[in-house]
Amino acid sequence: MEGFLFIEPHTPNVGIVMRVKGLLHREKSGFQEIEVIDTYEFDKVLLLSGKVMLTERDEYIYHEMLIHPAMLSHSSPKDIVIIGGGDGFSVREVLKYDVDRVSLVEIDERVTAVSRKIFGCPWLSDPRVKIYYEDGAKWIKKTDKADIIFVDSTDPEGSALSLAKKEFLSRCKEVLGDRGIFIAQSQSPFYDREFIKNQIKTLRSLFRSVQLYLAPIPTYPGGIWSFLIASQRSPAIFRPPPPLLKYYTSEIHTGAFALPQGLKEFLNTPL
Amino acid sequence: MEGFLFIEPHTPNVGIVMRVKGLLHREKSGFQEIEVIDTYEFDKVLLLSGKVMLTERDEYIYHEMLIHPAMLSHSSPKDIVIIGGGDGFSVREVLKYDVDRVSLVEIDERVTAVSRKIFGCPWLSDPRVKIYYEDGAKWIKKTDKADIIFVDSTDPEGSALSLAKKEFLSRCKEVLGDRGIFIAQSQSPFYDREFIKNQIKTLRSLFRSVQLYLAPIPTYPGGIWSFLIASQRSPAIFRPPPPLLKYYTSEIHTGAFALPQGLKEFLNTPL
Repeated sequence: MEGFLFIEPHTPNVGIVMRVKGLLHREKSGFQEIEVIDTYEFDKVLLLSGKVMLTERDEYIYHEMLIHPAMLSHSSPKDIVIIGGGDGFSVREVLKYDVDRVSLVEIDERVTAVSRKIFGCPWLSDPRVKIYYEDGAKWIKKTDKADIIFVDSTDPEGSALSLAKKEFLSRCKEVLGDRGIFIAQSQSPFYDREFIKNQIKTLRSLFRSVQLYLAPIPTYPGGIWSFLIASQRSPAIFRPPPPLLKYYTSEIHTGAFALPQGLKEFLNTPL
Repeated sequence: MEGFLFIEPHTPNVGIVMRVKGLLHREKSGFQEIEVIDTYEFDKVLLLSGKVMLTERDEYIYHEMLIHPAMLSHSSPKDIVIIGGGDGFSVREVLKYDVDRVSLVEIDERVTAVSRKIFGCPWLSDPRVKIYYEDGAKWIKKTDKADIIFVDSTDPEGSALSLAKKEFLSRCKEVLGDRGIFIAQSQSPFYDREFIKNQIKTLRSLFRSVQLYLAPIPTYPGGIWSFLIASQRSPAIFRPPPPLLKYYTSEIHTGAFALPQGLKEFLNTPL
């Protein structure tokens, strides 16, 4: 590969390398470095602290698989909270449903400003969307009700660390009540198995139903990503998916919960 | 990432980069460059013409997902043919069943020699295994019967190109008869969709049932790989999987056939 190359190390020992057309944006916010590169393979790519958050070519997989399983598993999802996800793409998926309110809680105002500048994100101007530039772990303490809470965070370090902690998860449980659904991106099932196992343990101490599911995302570490969905009720799918999705289907939904034998064994052995 | 790095371009514009401990083997055979590198993340990695064929850390996913869906879908798989797969790992999976004979047909004797030297591959010495160092497309013409034919080939270029052609596939159909199963690795569903669509079209002109399925393989392009399975009968699973698998489960089997909405639409539109 020739020319200007961007490398994201996924571990200290393996990474993805992309050929880059140019740098579209770079700034240091109060929280992190925010960059947008234009690449030959994935078009525009948003990086936070040097890590790929989304690319124009494969973001639909991550965002559809974060949002639709939970939206379709709630009997009446009206009041939606997204913690993190300041790039705004998760909001686009939520607005495919007849919701009353989407609260987007992003700690770094600059992420949203850059995303709007680069990607447009017209859905963020929908009157049902309210954006709070606050620490999600603090915001959730002031909130008393939500049907679904999505945690669309960066890796569990720095300002995102509190979103993986029991204090935050416990407050989410209170806010969600008996019918709500909690869902979080939960890192790579190939590289972050200890983290996943710990999160499952914590969530199981709070919620009656906790399930892990997977989706393949070419530009994320290991090419496959995990999500944790938790609630007080048994999982059920209440309706068919909205039209015009590019990744999600009902069969994909069911198949995503089929875990590799080795991962199941790892998760089932005591910590 | 620091130190000695190996890059495999997956397309001209994106690739995987691995930190390397050292080069364990390098030679030019009559067909290709054969290398084995020792890496920090994936341990030993076999490369053919600079492309990752297998790594010690994730090869189980590819080999289990190539072999078990077909083995479990045949009522009595006794006479097994593997075209390509000279590294020998597919044979290991086939020998988990009570088969009579495994014919491994590898064009490049040196691939098997290097694999034995580096990985041991004791299963290749099983008396049921017969190795033919021949062009698979020529070998199949002299063969009159098989229960399952696996095509465990390199990318469809060079000497592997003939294994994607109708002449070869048509001969496989004759050899397999009414009860046999054909199965081939069929490249990346993210980067090679045109190839997959063409292969499906050709196979559908020969077999009554043709299905695509997917499995996530971290070191392959896009992190997800595809397989085509074809037969004259409707698919059915005849028995539970053998013990001690690391990836395959019955739920994984079913889930692997759930295709992304966009891929389904692409495959369903006329070429």
